[in-house]
Amino acid sequence: MARLLHHPLDPSARLARLMLAEYGIPVDLEEIKPWLRQPEFLEINPAATVPILLDHAEPPVVGPLAVILNIEERFAPPSVAGLVPALSSERAEMWRMFEWVLGKLNDEVTRYVLEEKIVKRDRQGGTPDPAVLRIAKANLVEHMNYFTWLCATRNWLAGENMTLADFALAAHLSTLDYLGDIDWEKAGETRDWYSRIKSRPAFRTLLNDRVVGMPPHRGYADLDF
Amino acid sequence: MARLLHHPLDPSARLARLMLAEYGIPVDLEEIKPWLRQPEFLEINPAATVPILLDHAEPPVVGPLAVILNIEERFAPPSVAGLVPALSSERAEMWRMFEWVLGKLNDEVTRYVLEEKIVKRDRQGGTPDPAVLRIAKANLVEHMNYFTWLCATRNWLAGENMTLADFALAAHLSTLDYLGDIDWEKAGETRDWYSRIKSRPAFRTLLNDRVVGMPPHRGYADLDF
Repeated sequence: MARLLHHPLDPSARLARLMLAEYGIPVDLEEIKPWLRQPEFLEINPAATVPILLDHAEPPVVGPLAVILNIEERFAPPSVAGLVPALSSERAEMWRMFEWVLGKLNDEVTRYVLEEKIVKRDRQGGTPDPAVLRIAKANLVEHMNYFTWLCATRNWLAGENMTLADFALAAHLSTLDYLGDIDWEKAGETRDWYSRIKSRPAFRTLLNDRVVGMPPHRGYADLDF
Repeated sequence: MARLLHHPLDPSARLARLMLAEYGIPVDLEEIKPWLRQPEFLEINPAATVPILLDHAEPPVVGPLAVILNIEERFAPPSVAGLVPALSSERAEMWRMFEWVLGKLNDEVTRYVLEEKIVKRDRQGGTPDPAVLRIAKANLVEHMNYFTWLCATRNWLAGENMTLADFALAAHLSTLDYLGDIDWEKAGETRDWYSRIKSRPAFRTLLNDRVVGMPPHRGYADLDF
């Protein structure tokens, strides 16, 4: 069985796990803390990112983009509609939103929240900087407004069908939700969208996650949140 | 003919132009300044990034990842080895390095240099912050060491054949070289690699670029630099 090096709250690793669950591919999960930059980990990935997919006899597949594209290529069932649309224009819109989430949302929100709430605490028993969290929160409000506007005008994030972009956003929002950073009362259509995607069987793998010493925020695992 | 919205020094737009030139696809270039955030531009791309590929009757293809994948899908000649390797493990290594360049190198070097040297000057007649440029320069030294180590152990950045990862790095380094930020004397094998890729006919399109009021650094357009 393949092994996935991950951290339970890393959004790109969550995206990879969602895809594997959706495609029915079992993997062994091996938890690491990328920020510790352990030598044997840096040797596989000098960028110190997860996920990393390890398979017997194959060289490791390293980093979010390589792992996500590798899972899609190897495991997407050819007979049914997968997570990547067949139509070129729909694919372009999906990649635009995929890049929005893994690039912009991560840069402006998720990575700050993880750094302040998880990495700092783990590395030095430090406490989050409230000024940084305030900026991340303000940025998140803008992002949520945009997602809500999109979800009000289409069925799914990138169009009429569920795609990889939905999984990417769900992965990020589920990390932020675990840490109690999503105000669902104000989330409008994004809340309905998240409720639909959270009900998928593939999502169960994420809802059982627990980080030692940091239980999930109330409602994290409830389908009726 | 398709139109490409770009800025001459934007590295992702340079990558798209290199690909189009390599595949022999002519496009009309339309220069914009993404940082001005003009309403009609934000309407096409709320993320305010380039490149954007506009084609009659098709919806716009928006943002680096969507444009690059769209060009590869539509224009890569099926009969010859394109920029994406056929072997899965080679593709994975290519995407790792592609992500390194568009993610890590951009985050730690290119975007700071562009912000300080181009955006600030244009927006308010401001001057670069030397402290920021110093950090970007120190980061670039680390990146160059890594690229040089890779180039000393393989033919091209991601393996034995030239791939999209080479074009991605060449696009970034050419932007930094235009602005005089590369110390070629210390670049070792990366210099040999750059010399090879700079000699490709596709590269000519970049070497003729001129930004008004900011001529390229000495050696920028020379094949023997």
